[in-house]
Amino acid sequence: MVNKLIKFEVLHTCKQSGARLGKLTTPSGVFETPIFMPVGTKATVKTLNPQEIREVSEGLILSNTYHLWLEPGVDVIKAHGGVKKMMHWDGAMLTDSGGFQVFSLSGLRTIEEEGVTFRHHKSGAELFLSPELSIEIQEAIGADIIMSFDECPPGKASYEYQKNSLERTLRWAKRGKDHLKTDQALFGIVQGGLYEDLRRHSAEELMKIGFDGYSIGGLSVGEAKEDMYRITAFLNDILPFDKPRYLMGVGSPEDLVEGVIRGIDMFDCVLPTRNARHGMVLSTTGKYNIKKLEYKFDMDPLDPNIKSPISKYTKSYVRHLFRESEILASRILTYQNLLYLKHLMAEIRQAIKENRLLDFREEFYKKTNY
Amino acid sequence: MVNKLIKFEVLHTCKQSGARLGKLTTPSGVFETPIFMPVGTKATVKTLNPQEIREVSEGLILSNTYHLWLEPGVDVIKAHGGVKKMMHWDGAMLTDSGGFQVFSLSGLRTIEEEGVTFRHHKSGAELFLSPELSIEIQEAIGADIIMSFDECPPGKASYEYQKNSLERTLRWAKRGKDHLKTDQALFGIVQGGLYEDLRRHSAEELMKIGFDGYSIGGLSVGEAKEDMYRITAFLNDILPFDKPRYLMGVGSPEDLVEGVIRGIDMFDCVLPTRNARHGMVLSTTGKYNIKKLEYKFDMDPLDPNIKSPISKYTKSYVRHLFRESEILASRILTYQNLLYLKHLMAEIRQAIKENRLLDFREEFYKKTNY
Repeated sequence: MVNKLIKFEVLHTCKQSGARLGKLTTPSGVFETPIFMPVGTKATVKTLNPQEIREVSEGLILSNTYHLWLEPGVDVIKAHGGVKKMMHWDGAMLTDSGGFQVFSLSGLRTIEEEGVTFRHHKSGAELFLSPELSIEIQEAIGADIIMSFDECPPGKASYEYQKNSLERTLRWAKRGKDHLKTDQALFGIVQGGLYEDLRRHSAEELMKIGFDGYSIGGLSVGEAKEDMYRITAFLNDILPFDKPRYLMGVGSPEDLVEGVIRGIDMFDCVLPTRNARHGMVLSTTGKYNIKKLEYKFDMDPLDPNIKSPISKYTKSYVRHLFRESEILASRILTYQNLLYLKHLMAEIRQAIKENRLLDFREEFYKKTNY
Repeated sequence: MVNKLIKFEVLHTCKQSGARLGKLTTPSGVFETPIFMPVGTKATVKTLNPQEIREVSEGLILSNTYHLWLEPGVDVIKAHGGVKKMMHWDGAMLTDSGGFQVFSLSGLRTIEEEGVTFRHHKSGAELFLSPELSIEIQEAIGADIIMSFDECPPGKASYEYQKNSLERTLRWAKRGKDHLKTDQALFGIVQGGLYEDLRRHSAEELMKIGFDGYSIGGLSVGEAKEDMYRITAFLNDILPFDKPRYLMGVGSPEDLVEGVIRGIDMFDCVLPTRNARHGMVLSTTGKYNIKKLEYKFDMDPLDPNIKSPISKYTKSYVRHLFRESEILASRILTYQNLLYLKHLMAEIRQAIKENRLLDFREEFYKKTNY
């Protein structure tokens, strides 16, 4: 039932907020939670090499099954003995199921009980993905933690649509679990849109099947922040205490703080890496755009409170590099943004230990523009 | 007359080829010559950070006066105390004069005795550059070695044009030298197109003015290889033995070998870095394009004979990164290409020491597709 290679325990619960401090043990590392996982979509966290990924992460990253399945493909990945060996990542890895990309990137698709037929998001070629195939691809990729194949319905889907989709996703979750031949840890994904009864039903049925952890999907897809916070808090009372809870696709600094307060242990998001490539800096003093004229002569580092290999560069220099589209700018900004989220998560864990996470949130909003 | 902070001596002359092994002493490092200098156009060698530049170079890089003058501008550079401090480069640096870019990037220009009026290559704004201003900008940039402001006429320019241009460039060289207020080493630039009498005249007149080194400009601008080799060899007998000779803009592996045989001590070129971003690999086994299907399952490193931090990556993985336009691909390929040229120059220097550079050239052409 329970995967033997992965272990999770809640070490402490913040007396002020109820937030959880946990320990996640994997074959490739032991991690304190709550944790943020940088996204390495195509077998690289964009702009960084493995040593730098190690420096700006806790040692646990995400890769995307859909993208890796298409390029370089399962045969190339297998020839390397898995994605971790291919990219020379000696830390831990989590993969999503490909479901989210099938439903968000491809316009044309047919959903049937067996699986989904859809068009390649670039070439237009017809492709098919099923719960079993998703598991097989994730087995080839070889992450420590993998996901059930799910449908992620559009945010504005009707109650009826959400309900039918959810029931099928539950059957898919069972099929995926039955199909798994490795000892990778498998998480189930809670769906149900913004409907609390559907979310409850989804969580409870997944718990009956039994998974190593529970992901919350279908949030951070365009809904209001209050709705995301409401559904997360709602599931906090339903999901099993002794299993990790992963809020998928969430990673703005404020959502990390709010998510942890609502019981979340794991997060991933492209926001810090993608925004870096657009000049947006996340820092201990808040977010800002390095392109702005006010930084032209600014001799301070990007973040005055985090010492790192990039703190030698002035804002003025990074602004110059960014304006000139130099790749080094994307490297420096990506490094800064991920390092800041690592720093923030460490602060959050410390605040949980000290039972003052609500106080921390207040200071966080006061001291920054998040 | 002679700059006191820079020193050059010829340590040995290859008995087989006549090629020179030298020692170039600068305030920021001592270098064995012949040497290849990576190009850091806009205060960064594209894709690399200063530590990586150190690893793939001898510690001497080039920066472009024209680009740095326009962005970030002299005021920002001065605020940092020079470009080396701005980019955190603790090695040595050489700057060109901006002349080449004025004549190659800007379509509209008016050349007068005082200087050149031209249009910004992007914005179209009217700009003016003169020998004195070029020196002042280079003083602000703060390289160890700087260049005289020259006109680089188009390769197909007539004898008459070349002659008039050359005389003006000689007057500009004198004005630049007279204007220099720092103790930076100043090189004169030999022009004269493919006309040997003009080249001789240019070299001899520059030698009368007296410079710390002599650059050969106006080659590698589209002429036949034989012409480039012929002019280089011709100047080998004219330029002073005890001063460094710098062949500007040359950097293909075969041109480095051929240039050294014709008496050149210093080279720079964007070829290794630019071609890297187009997937072209320079290696000890020859050049190849990593995009090719034949590398899809290739588990070998990019270069089987050079051990480095990137030799852990397979060709298959780098091909995948390149096809997916991942920045890490450009980083890895840039690193490889520069590291290979560093390796090649070390082999060349060794062959000079052993008086077998012509044998080396034969093996080089036999073992590779250069």
